Amino acid sequence: MTIDQTAKNTPVDPVDLTAQLVRCASVTPEEGGALVLLQGLLEAAGFHCTRTDRNGIANLYARWGAKGHSLSFGFNGHTDVVPLGDVAAWSCDPFGAEIRDGWLMGRGACDMKSGVAAFVAAAIDFVKDTPPEGAVVIAITGDEEGDGVDGTAAILDWMDAQSERMSICLVGEPTCPNTFGEMIKIGRRGSMTAYFTATGVQGHAAYPHRAKNPVPALARLVDRLASAELDVGTDHFDPSTLAVTTFDVGNPANNVIPAQAKATVNIRFNDTHSSQSLIAWLNAQAGAVAAETGIDIQMSAKVSGESFVTPPGALSDLVAEAVEAETGVVPVLSTSGGTSDARYVRAHCPVVEFGLVGQSMHQVDERVEVSQIHALKAVYHRTLAAYFAQPT
Amino acid sequence: MTIDQTAKNTPVDPVDLTAQLVRCASVTPEEGGALVLLQGLLEAAGFHCTRTDRNGIANLYARWGAKGHSLSFGFNGHTDVVPLGDVAAWSCDPFGAEIRDGWLMGRGACDMKSGVAAFVAAAIDFVKDTPPEGAVVIAITGDEEGDGVDGTAAILDWMDAQSERMSICLVGEPTCPNTFGEMIKIGRRGSMTAYFTATGVQGHAAYPHRAKNPVPALARLVDRLASAELDVGTDHFDPSTLAVTTFDVGNPANNVIPAQAKATVNIRFNDTHSSQSLIAWLNAQAGAVAAETGIDIQMSAKVSGESFVTPPGALSDLVAEAVEAETGVVPVLSTSGGTSDARYVRAHCPVVEFGLVGQSMHQVDERVEVSQIHALKAVYHRTLAAYFAQPT
Ligand SMILES: [Zn+2]
Ligand SMILES: [Zn+2]
Repeated sequence: MTIDQTAKNTPVDPVDLTAQLVRCASVTPEEGGALVLLQGLLEAAGFHCTRTDRNGIANLYARWGAKGHSLSFGFNGHTDVVPLGDVAAWSCDPFGAEIRDGWLMGRGACDMKSGVAAFVAAAIDFVKDTPPEGAVVIAITGDEEGDGVDGTAAILDWMDAQSERMSICLVGEPTCPNTFGEMIKIGRRGSMTAYFTATGVQGHAAYPHRAKNPVPALARLVDRLASAELDVGTDHFDPSTLAVTTFDVGNPANNVIPAQAKATVNIRFNDTHSSQSLIAWLNAQAGAVAAETGIDIQMSAKVSGESFVTPPGALSDLVAEAVEAETGVVPVLSTSGGTSDARYVRAHCPVVEFGLVGQSMHQVDERVEVSQIHALKAVYHRTLAAYFAQPT
Repeated sequence: MTIDQTAKNTPVDPVDLTAQLVRCASVTPEEGGALVLLQGLLEAAGFHCTRTDRNGIANLYARWGAKGHSLSFGFNGHTDVVPLGDVAAWSCDPFGAEIRDGWLMGRGACDMKSGVAAFVAAAIDFVKDTPPEGAVVIAITGDEEGDGVDGTAAILDWMDAQSERMSICLVGEPTCPNTFGEMIKIGRRGSMTAYFTATGVQGHAAYPHRAKNPVPALARLVDRLASAELDVGTDHFDPSTLAVTTFDVGNPANNVIPAQAKATVNIRFNDTHSSQSLIAWLNAQAGAVAAETGIDIQMSAKVSGESFVTPPGALSDLVAEAVEAETGVVPVLSTSGGTSDARYVRAHCPVVEFGLVGQSMHQVDERVEVSQIHALKAVYHRTLAAYFAQPT
C-alpha cells in the first residue's frame, strides 16, 4: 500500500489491506513483504514500530501510546501462511487476492491475513479518531504455522526485556466454526505428541519362534491407547482426545519378521491432565505391553503446549458484548480446537481469541467473505472503544 | 571346467565343481555361466540336455537313459543365488570360491551350488561306473530364489509336454539345521501372504470425532491375528505360524489423522488348513474388526503354495538309509522351514529333500565345509545305487 497522506483522514479499508497482504507470498518462514507493508502503515499512523526478528523469523511489534501503560490493549496475529498444497487444484491464483461473488480468495485470506488487516485497520482508525488514555499494542509474527518458537514467543521475550506490556490481549485467529460471531476462544487444550519405538529380534517369517516380532506388540499398545477414555471433559473443556497418527515398519520382504516398528500418537488434553501426567500414563501402558510381549518399547514425547484457560470474566465479557452488538449473535466461550499463539501470550496477560469463520483455512481455494472482514474490523473497533471507556 | 577327455575315467570332484559354480555370478535372474558349465559336463558324460528357458529364465533339463522309463530317478536344484547384501561386510570375494580352513566361501556355496555339484558329480560317476537299467534325470533352474514361476515349474511343464518323467525326485536344498545328516524334508508347510488395507476418513488430530482413524482398527486386527493359535500341529507338521511382517501409514504430519493404513501378514500353514480356509478366516477376522470400528478393511491374498507331504515310505527310507550309512546319523523326517521347488515337483512325483547344513545360507560370508560336499556326493551316489538295485 502506498501511504497516501492526502487520504489520511479516511478510514483504512480492511478488505483492500487483506488483499495487499494476500499478494505477499509469505509461506512460513518467508516474510514476503507482509510485515514491511504493515510497518509502513502503522508508522504513518503514529505507532512506534520495532522488528523483533529472531533466528531468521520476522516479527513486528508496534505500540501507540505510552510504553508500559496500565491500560495497554494488545492484538496478536500472524502473517505467515501454510503451503499451497495441490497447486493445480486451486481455481484461482493463490496469491492473487481475487474477489469473486463477494468472497476474497487466496492463501491466508481466512487464516489470518483478514484478521490482521481488521485489527490493524481498527487500531489505526481508533487512535486517530479517539486517541485513548493508554496504549494500543500490535504484535504480529511471521511464524505461527511453523514451529513458532521464534515467533510470538520471541516478541514476548523482547517485550519482557524492554518492559513493554500488554494488559490484555485479543488474538485475531479464525474462531467461528460456521457462523460469524458464534464463538470466542478463552483457552486451548494442551497438545503433545508421543513417539513409540518397539524393538524385537529380526528373523525369518517361517520361524517366528526364533524371532521377536515388535509389530503385534506395538499394535496392541496403540489399540489400547486409542480405546482409552482419557476423561469426560471439565467445566471449560471438551474431553481430551488421543489420535494415532502413524504406524510404520517399512519392511518390503514378506518372508522377514522386522526388528523395529514405530508409531506416533497425538494427544489434545484438558486441565484434567498435564503433559507430565500423560507421559507417566503412556509409559505405564507401554510398560504393560512390553511385559506381556517381551518386546522393548521406548517412548519420547514432544510437548507443544499445556492446556490453559482465561476464565470467563472481564475480558471475555468485553469481546462478547462487542460481538453481539455488531453481529446479533451471542458467542459461546470455547476451548476447542488446535493450538494457537495464545499459548504463549497467556503467560504474559489474560488472552482470548476472536475472528472469522475458519472453514476454508489451510485448504485449497481458501477464502473469506468480504462483508465479514468489515464486520470483524467493527467488532475490534468496538472492543477498543469499550476497553478505554471503562473506569480504571 | 574344461572337459579333460584324458581324465574321463576319474571321478568328478564336487568341491572343484562347486568352486567353479560359485565363480559364476548367477544372482537371480542371471544365468552367469552356471548352466552352460553344467550342460557341457553332463553332455560329455552322455546326458541328453535341453535348455527349457522361459521368459528370460535359464533352465537345464538333462537325462541319461531312456525317456519315460518307469525307473527314472530325478534330482532337482537351482544355480541362482540371492544378492550379496552388504558387500563391504564380506571377508572374502563373494564370487571368489576361496577355501579357508576347510571351508569353501562364497555366495551360493551353501544354497545350493554345492548341492548341485554333489548330485551332478554323483550322477556322472554313477552312470559311468554302473550304467543302470533306467534313467537319471537332472532338472536345474536359474530361478528358485526369485518368483520361481518360470523356473522348475517351466521345466516340469516342458517335461509334461514332452512325456519326459521322473518317477521320484530328490531335491538337493540345504535341509540340516546344525549337523550334516540330521534332517530330511518330506514336505513343506504352505505359505501365503495377506495384504490388508484399512480405509477411514482423514481429519485433524484435534477433532478425532470428525475423522475415522483406520490405524487403531488395523492395529486391533493384526494383534488379534498374531495372538490366535492356528492349530497345534499334525502328524507330519509343526503348528502353523502367522507373522505380521509390516504395518505402514507413512503420515509425517502429527496433527493429521490419516485416511489409510496397510499391513501384511505371512502365514506358514500345515495340512489342518488350505489357503482357501485361511482366506475365509482372515476375512471373518477383518469383518469383525470392521463391524466394531466402522473402518473399511479390504484384503487381498497371494498364495505361494499349499502344504504338501510325501508320507514316510519307500522314498524317504531310501534316502534315510543312504544318509545313515554315510554319516552315522539317523535323519529325522521334517516338514519345517520355508518353501522350495519341491512344491512344484510334488505334483509330478513323490519328492523329498536332503542336503547340507543351511546355517549360512543367504548371509554374508556364506560358506560350506569342504568335507560335507564330498559326504553329500557320497549320499547321493549311494541313494542312486540303492534305487536301481531295488527289485522293480
Ligand atoms: Zn492461524
Ligand atoms: Zn535354495
